[in-house]
Amino acid sequence: MDISKRAKQIQESPIRKLAAVAIETKKKGIHIYYLNIGQPDIHTPEIFYKKIKDFSENVLSYGPSDGLDELRQAIADYFSKYNITLNKNDIIITTGGSEAVSFAFTVIADPGDEIIIPEPFYTNYNGYSSISNLKIVPITTDPETGYHLPDISEFEKKITKKTKAIMICSPNNPTGTVLYEKEIRELGELVKKYNLFLIADEVYKEFTYDGEKHFSILQLKGLEDQTIVVDSISKRYSACGARIGAIISKNRVVMKSILKFAQARLCPPTLEQIGAIGAYKLPLSYFKTITAEYQKRRDILVEILTSNKEIILKKPKGAFYIMTKLPIDNSDKFAKWMLENFEIDNETVMVAPGAGFYSTPGKGTQEIRIAYVLESNKLKKAGNILLKAIEKYNSLNL
Amino acid sequence: MDISKRAKQIQESPIRKLAAVAIETKKKGIHIYYLNIGQPDIHTPEIFYKKIKDFSENVLSYGPSDGLDELRQAIADYFSKYNITLNKNDIIITTGGSEAVSFAFTVIADPGDEIIIPEPFYTNYNGYSSISNLKIVPITTDPETGYHLPDISEFEKKITKKTKAIMICSPNNPTGTVLYEKEIRELGELVKKYNLFLIADEVYKEFTYDGEKHFSILQLKGLEDQTIVVDSISKRYSACGARIGAIISKNRVVMKSILKFAQARLCPPTLEQIGAIGAYKLPLSYFKTITAEYQKRRDILVEILTSNKEIILKKPKGAFYIMTKLPIDNSDKFAKWMLENFEIDNETVMVAPGAGFYSTPGKGTQEIRIAYVLESNKLKKAGNILLKAIEKYNSLNL
Repeated sequence: MDISKRAKQIQESPIRKLAAVAIETKKKGIHIYYLNIGQPDIHTPEIFYKKIKDFSENVLSYGPSDGLDELRQAIADYFSKYNITLNKNDIIITTGGSEAVSFAFTVIADPGDEIIIPEPFYTNYNGYSSISNLKIVPITTDPETGYHLPDISEFEKKITKKTKAIMICSPNNPTGTVLYEKEIRELGELVKKYNLFLIADEVYKEFTYDGEKHFSILQLKGLEDQTIVVDSISKRYSACGARIGAIISKNRVVMKSILKFAQARLCPPTLEQIGAIGAYKLPLSYFKTITAEYQKRRDILVEILTSNKEIILKKPKGAFYIMTKLPIDNSDKFAKWMLENFEIDNETVMVAPGAGFYSTPGKGTQEIRIAYVLESNKLKKAGNILLKAIEKYNSLNL
Repeated sequence: MDISKRAKQIQESPIRKLAAVAIETKKKGIHIYYLNIGQPDIHTPEIFYKKIKDFSENVLSYGPSDGLDELRQAIADYFSKYNITLNKNDIIITTGGSEAVSFAFTVIADPGDEIIIPEPFYTNYNGYSSISNLKIVPITTDPETGYHLPDISEFEKKITKKTKAIMICSPNNPTGTVLYEKEIRELGELVKKYNLFLIADEVYKEFTYDGEKHFSILQLKGLEDQTIVVDSISKRYSACGARIGAIISKNRVVMKSILKFAQARLCPPTLEQIGAIGAYKLPLSYFKTITAEYQKRRDILVEILTSNKEIILKKPKGAFYIMTKLPIDNSDKFAKWMLENFEIDNETVMVAPGAGFYSTPGKGTQEIRIAYVLESNKLKKAGNILLKAIEKYNSLNL
């Protein structure tokens, strides 16, 4: 008796794989600044907790497989504030954005089918492609161009008979890049031409800086049957532990099939859906101070890092990540070394090595992802520790 | 652009597929007794809600992918009360028992591989086999023998090179059958001989009647590397909406791989895990009154139904389901007809048609599953409506 091929093949999360090393570091009494994981320190809205505390049913029973009606309506209302018209039938609540990714992959593709995704990409797309036996076909983007998309012809070249979809994430995890409306419109034309699905992970929608605006694939006219959006409250309302997301599409066949997948797992968590109803009713102004805070942090970090001229970094316009190419030989080795062998005043930094965000072997080996989810003072310290660590590491010739 | 084959293939939940019909019935002002879904009316323990209401972290952050340590320890402690020794590394918290099934299937089998399961079986195994592209190979059991297992040779005949596991559910959903220790030991010998996994869904463990005891596959000596248990708090603590389950195995390679799947979806819902910690600390005596209540209900329902001598029903010894063969032509038709065309004093009954619990075409067409999750008085009414409906339906020659 042996485990499955897919179980052998699935990669460890590059974000979480150093967790065991970090535990040992902490045991030595060293404080770690966690820049590896996109866990915001922003408080979860009061109203989220209040709604849950007010729950007074005697039985915590199954909810509908497509999610609580009131939550689906609240999400539709929230989208209407962005002039995107949805009705609740276009929305199925999922257990985190993760499940929305899983549903999206499974509903459009069979084992062996291909999905084109610009790399670096959110590492868990890899996890789900392994579980679903799909092949991710990467389009490499570069730190030098701020990880924007290459010419649309690069996408077209990769389309085969097995291609089912193109998937994007904007604002992007791990790069922070906000795709231009023009880039998204070109992808729209391409999926129209080849009759493919266009999937967009838009969970960082609110977090754009320097006046940049997020452009949703739901704004593409005439593509309603081809677009699928992955959404989540995890970052929007700093409620990562809630595991509430949504999958959004106007394609009725897609939604009907997803409902059957959803029935197989019965329903998303009920109490956290109730909390989410509260959060979704917050006005858009709620995001103003949060966005300003993230923008400030980004600026701090970019300023510190670009003081080393060998670090390649274009100021990203969204999300709360920076992907950057460091003047080091190998970021896996470097990240582990920082945890095991480097500290300043008993403090060190944990980052996510870049290779795990690429699917092309050998790519990203000098890059790291940093999540700026710590307040300014801590971020300054962490940034400076990182700078010094690069110097020290390179001086050692490991 | 078209949806995937697996999306086309996945069956609708037989438990939930009449939901739309039921909504129309309710609109007509008719009250429905819901015997179709295993949603207990037993109150969720106070301590579950209290723990959640006491939660005071400002940020609802990601938990560990394998679940909260304290919950894993609480589950290990709970098992020790049954003289089953587990440590927390043998336990990964899942988003409901559903996710535990999904992890179990994916970790041991690749597309095209086979899992042998006695039928009728919990319908969502079908859903997950479609999603994971596995083949369920059924072993048919009969209402006449109380759905106990056929001779072990029937299992042996079905083993091929593609067989990865045998899966059981005891106490059983949908039949209520509690497998004999002897049956489980024989399966243990068989998986040993053929080097297969043995998966057991044991979520109804506490609910056994007439002095019957549940025998866990975790009690099989020398099979520690081959056994995987699917568990859940949904029924145990009447917290179906919480979506907290667990997958349990002492096989380190299996658990390490499952952790990678678990990382892809980040973590199970945090608040509901905190509630579960409270519930798991309840003494086993907590189940006494609940089990007595279910046993009483079972007795009521069995007495009513067996008053019709054409109904085939062996008193089941566990869970809160009865699977029974009715003297009707087709239970899909019958269940729908009850909702659309039958009422007594403005009341009718919803049941789950049997065919959806079988994977062999044509099987179960006269059977229904009844969940006795209503209090005695309601159950009596519902049982009598069902009896009268059978008479009426047969008199109509539809």
